[in-house]
Amino acid sequence: MKNTFGNNISLTIFGESHGTGIGAVLDGVAPGIAVDEAFIASQLDLRRPVGAISTPRTEQDKFVIESGVFAGYTTGTPICILIPNENTKSKDYGEIKYKMRPGHADFTAFAKYHGFADYRGGGHFSGRITAALTAAGAILISALRDKGIFIGSHIARCAGTDDKGFDNLSTDIDLLNKKAFAVLDDGAAEKMQSAILAAKRQGDSVGGILETAVTGMPAGVGEPWFDTIEGMLSHALFSIPAIKGVEFGAGFAISDLHGSESNDEFYYENDKVCTKTNNNGGINGGITNGMPIIFRCAVKPTPTICRMQNTVDIKLHENTELAAGGRHDPCIVHRARVVVDSVTALVLCDMLCGSFGTDWLVK
Amino acid sequence: MKNTFGNNISLTIFGESHGTGIGAVLDGVAPGIAVDEAFIASQLDLRRPVGAISTPRTEQDKFVIESGVFAGYTTGTPICILIPNENTKSKDYGEIKYKMRPGHADFTAFAKYHGFADYRGGGHFSGRITAALTAAGAILISALRDKGIFIGSHIARCAGTDDKGFDNLSTDIDLLNKKAFAVLDDGAAEKMQSAILAAKRQGDSVGGILETAVTGMPAGVGEPWFDTIEGMLSHALFSIPAIKGVEFGAGFAISDLHGSESNDEFYYENDKVCTKTNNNGGINGGITNGMPIIFRCAVKPTPTICRMQNTVDIKLHENTELAAGGRHDPCIVHRARVVVDSVTALVLCDMLCGSFGTDWLVK
Amino acid sequence: MKNTFGNNISLTIFGESHGTGIGAVLDGVAPGIAVDEAFIASQLDLRRPVGAISTPRTEQDKFVIESGVFAGYTTGTPICILIPNENTKSKDYGEIKYKMRPGHADFTAFAKYHGFADYRGGGHFSGRITAALTAAGAILISALRDKGIFIGSHIARCAGTDDKGFDNLSTDIDLLNKKAFAVLDDGAAEKMQSAILAAKRQGDSVGGILETAVTGMPAGVGEPWFDTIEGMLSHALFSIPAIKGVEFGAGFAISDLHGSESNDEFYYENDKVCTKTNNNGGINGGITNGMPIIFRCAVKPTPTICRMQNTVDIKLHENTELAAGGRHDPCIVHRARVVVDSVTALVLCDMLCGSFGTDWLVK
Amino acid sequence: MKNTFGNNISLTIFGESHGTGIGAVLDGVAPGIAVDEAFIASQLDLRRPVGAISTPRTEQDKFVIESGVFAGYTTGTPICILIPNENTKSKDYGEIKYKMRPGHADFTAFAKYHGFADYRGGGHFSGRITAALTAAGAILISALRDKGIFIGSHIARCAGTDDKGFDNLSTDIDLLNKKAFAVLDDGAAEKMQSAILAAKRQGDSVGGILETAVTGMPAGVGEPWFDTIEGMLSHALFSIPAIKGVEFGAGFAISDLHGSESNDEFYYENDKVCTKTNNNGGINGGITNGMPIIFRCAVKPTPTICRMQNTVDIKLHENTELAAGGRHDPCIVHRARVVVDSVTALVLCDMLCGSFGTDWLVK
Repeated sequence: MKNTFGNNISLTIFGESHGTGIGAVLDGVAPGIAVDEAFIASQLDLRRPVGAISTPRTEQDKFVIESGVFAGYTTGTPICILIPNENTKSKDYGEIKYKMRPGHADFTAFAKYHGFADYRGGGHFSGRITAALTAAGAILISALRDKGIFIGSHIARCAGTDDKGFDNLSTDIDLLNKKAFAVLDDGAAEKMQSAILAAKRQGDSVGGILETAVTGMPAGVGEPWFDTIEGMLSHALFSIPAIKGVEFGAGFAISDLHGSESNDEFYYENDKVCTKTNNNGGINGGITNGMPIIFRCAVKPTPTICRMQNTVDIKLHENTELAAGGRHDPCIVHRARVVVDSVTALVLCDMLCGSFGTDWLVK
Repeated sequence: MKNTFGNNISLTIFGESHGTGIGAVLDGVAPGIAVDEAFIASQLDLRRPVGAISTPRTEQDKFVIESGVFAGYTTGTPICILIPNENTKSKDYGEIKYKMRPGHADFTAFAKYHGFADYRGGGHFSGRITAALTAAGAILISALRDKGIFIGSHIARCAGTDDKGFDNLSTDIDLLNKKAFAVLDDGAAEKMQSAILAAKRQGDSVGGILETAVTGMPAGVGEPWFDTIEGMLSHALFSIPAIKGVEFGAGFAISDLHGSESNDEFYYENDKVCTKTNNNGGINGGITNGMPIIFRCAVKPTPTICRMQNTVDIKLHENTELAAGGRHDPCIVHRARVVVDSVTALVLCDMLCGSFGTDWLVK
Repeated sequence: MKNTFGNNISLTIFGESHGTGIGAVLDGVAPGIAVDEAFIASQLDLRRPVGAISTPRTEQDKFVIESGVFAGYTTGTPICILIPNENTKSKDYGEIKYKMRPGHADFTAFAKYHGFADYRGGGHFSGRITAALTAAGAILISALRDKGIFIGSHIARCAGTDDKGFDNLSTDIDLLNKKAFAVLDDGAAEKMQSAILAAKRQGDSVGGILETAVTGMPAGVGEPWFDTIEGMLSHALFSIPAIKGVEFGAGFAISDLHGSESNDEFYYENDKVCTKTNNNGGINGGITNGMPIIFRCAVKPTPTICRMQNTVDIKLHENTELAAGGRHDPCIVHRARVVVDSVTALVLCDMLCGSFGTDWLVK
Repeated sequence: MKNTFGNNISLTIFGESHGTGIGAVLDGVAPGIAVDEAFIASQLDLRRPVGAISTPRTEQDKFVIESGVFAGYTTGTPICILIPNENTKSKDYGEIKYKMRPGHADFTAFAKYHGFADYRGGGHFSGRITAALTAAGAILISALRDKGIFIGSHIARCAGTDDKGFDNLSTDIDLLNKKAFAVLDDGAAEKMQSAILAAKRQGDSVGGILETAVTGMPAGVGEPWFDTIEGMLSHALFSIPAIKGVEFGAGFAISDLHGSESNDEFYYENDKVCTKTNNNGGINGGITNGMPIIFRCAVKPTPTICRMQNTVDIKLHENTELAAGGRHDPCIVHRARVVVDSVTALVLCDMLCGSFGTDWLVK
């Protein structure tokens, strides 16, 4: 299926950046989960632009729950969350109808949709669609919390500056989920933001790396082939615009280790099987081992930039130049963070319910 | 679904390392594709152990096509390929029934299957199952070739040694597909193999990075959300045992670039839209742009090693030690190469047939 | 997946009878299909209540296309159609919160959703949700017409009165698609409507049989096992509330024939293979044979009736009685007709695109 | 997906009537279910030809469990059951390569597979493939029994003769599952068998109706839209060759009732909600209500008959005649019975595991 993900809990997303509205249908969620609209709003806030380091387009992201929630609780039927588009300035985008922004999906959308796609603001490829992912994800994030499963991400690297690593996952996750610019080291945050602003002044953009931790997952969730934890998470994570790499545990660095270094030795702690290291990111053979799930996503620099770039005009069939107008972000790493958390919640809820049944979330 | 992948062309795999047989059911393949059993055998040869750098267990991998092929051509119905297990020495594995190999799936299999899994030789988690992937993939690899789509992978890095990069993709892919140990720089190959043997002598193992190129993909294939090319490929690739990271184009390195560097500028060449660089690995917005698809997979060191490691005994519920017996590989990077190619063929055929219909492969 | 149907073209539906809104997300539709909002409205009109033989609740069914349509054409991205609920009188339904209407889904919803379902007006089980199916189906019905594939249904039987059978399918389909009460024999229509009114006066309800014909389907569409034409159609048709039987061609009557009678003999007509009879309803081995697809759906009497019935009170855990208040239909056969057509269009488009690719609809 | 059914528990089938072998891969089954090979064999016996009323082709149906079962129990990994073809007389089928048997899938296979299908003995469309369904279904039927869920079917009608109806479901199901020719009234059996033999003498064939009952299903299983119990069952049932109609509860007859007659009134019995009648076949709103599931399948007469029929020669593109050679059944109703039971077990296990998790079957 095309814009739908998940087997037991599934999410279908729709919408264009400058269309009537965007939204998501979240299905398969157990009945009886409390839906806190204030928490959904606060998660949407984490995705919204932050001051000078973000786009000037600020949507209110006023969402409407059209279905699936009754008297404050999920009903068990599909939850449609609709977010109307309000602050659209479509005329900014006239030029990109035929002039393809390098690094963006303009040309591939044209190739796939034969010129019928809504090109305004990136249309269905716009990062704006991730607001729908975030709203739907918020319901699942709070359901997981009630089951003792916590998700947190930080900007591990941005514009060449590293954040410090995770230390105490429990307090780190708590801290990060309150921050608009999610870093563990405030000094690193300053450097990152300065670099973002510097890029912005040059009409340019920067990227970074998000690192995510999930605590509390029971051992034994995931499938040995195809629907591995890594496979399912990466499948969904690569949907987030600009993500170009996903690695688990020690990730690419593991390829330089010896087996005797990369293997995570087991030991018993209070009759629970634990590992001394976590180079495998909490996953062996595609299945959770009960240790924290750890992964990192590479986020490329925002492709829409003001600097002049060479490109093609697909109407005139000739080479041309483009300096993108419109409103855009010099960096989306900090905004993508909550989207990563949301997608992670979706995948894990889906797999947990596959193993333990739909109602596990409210047991 | 659990051990099945793909929407339009799907692959279901089954089998345990020391069971009766392993195999795959490949469904959705167009009728009329020539099936060359000699090519399937030669692809299986590429996966089989290579001299001293591999496991001493050598299976003949004699496969039987049970269905779906008639008079040398695919019929359009499901193709079941069965590979009987022959050279099994199950007694080697008695110890690991309760002593969990660090880094391997023994413990997670126990957690998931409550002690009923066939633990011998890693059971369903064994790399041996990839022989079935390889046999099925061979049919698709040759079908893609007939459509002008070529896949090739090299060992970009192994045990700390880098291969040289891709240069002329067409000749590189040709070359690599003939080599048992797929590197572009023979000098690098020697160093890698020495390092593998050194690790073996120490009862240890090493890992590496595989880099894959696909040429000839038409622009416009892939979906904007969820079933992106990156998402679908990574979903399937992470099934291959030991893969812990997947990155496309410039991958993680892209996160340190500016947008003006990472964006691939478009230009016309003979009225075909091309890009000057390929930092996005042939994919924008989840959809092919007509440039070569480029990605890298991080392969961890083989987890089964002879060196003594700390672990747990799940029967006695106590900490213990284990030096793995059985026959195993000091490195699987070179053997995993053809599996990566096979999985890539599966994903791309599936997505091409989704866009263009089942019969596109024989049009 | 739960409230989603289809592999290549998929439909996800959401909403409750008395919630904020209902709707559908239709995905996988080729770009470039003209979307005629007036036709969607006219199809919704065919589903809306008709005078005295229907419920007094009349919703305007003002739909909003939230996404996936741009400048009058499908874009290729998900089409969300939202229909706000307006004319809700929820207080009518207080009694059925705990008193289960016999024949309706009140009790099964309670069992499945543990009391969290929105019970008002049947909630997610309400026939009102079929308005979303109808709106989405309208887009596909007109796309199929442009490919020469026509769908039409008549009330073959209602309240014990038979309509006459199909004669000239082309003119019959044309005629039926213009009628609010779709019968071929106007005399039969009068008798049926009298019987409906008689039932209504008694606080009762009646059922009937819908017969559908599809012309213009190419031969060779469908799968031999599981995703047969019959299997896929019936899967979707049984979603329509009140349908309790589906039969193809001669249907149940075929079981009394001899093979020499039931077999449809082939012959050539202008080099096209045809059959002399059509006892198999245009389908052999699950696959279209190029003859018209013919099937019938049994529609049970509306379960909500005003007459006093025995039932249970699930709060008090005791036997009780109920005479349903609220507004309801003495017969839904005539209203279900366009829903059957819509679901048929969905299934056939899905299967055609599976065989011939997404873009087949606009080729 | 094409030859795969099920979301949580899935079945993939493969094979051709005269190919190397046929089989099934059953995935998603909980670990720890006892696998009784003798029971599988006895179920296959129920499907095998019975004396003069069946085809003279008798396959031993010696099956091999290739994977997924270890030490007598399911492991939780995919179970591949392979049944080699042995008693094939392919030369009998030379004539039908181009002369299309009326009522059979020869022509539709040709249209779909462009002449590449294995036409011998009906190839992948052969009823022989149902042996694989039966073997896989046997594992699920016994797993359901251990959960208190029982399935039984009888030949409700054959060649115009009715069996008596279900009376005491528990003893009726017991009785039927021991009979090769499953009728409740032995006098009816004699009449049916006489009619089958009479048809055979005339080179003809007959059909019938199978009625199935399932007891012990918990209330609350099934989805309101699309994946209703009726939709999922009928989807899978229509795969069984020759089935042309499926109806639940009172089925088509319900369309002549009034709502006050067709509604099944609820009452409490030992604090369990029951219904006085079962016109809805244990299903309301697509979801089980805890009463027995009841449905009927119309089975058409075997299409392959010895009598001369008009047909086409697709090589010569001309009208011709055909009297089928080969070995075939004058009636398959009695043999289809166990296939219906097997498919029913598959669908119900899939839906139960969707609601309650994979491990529910062994809890």
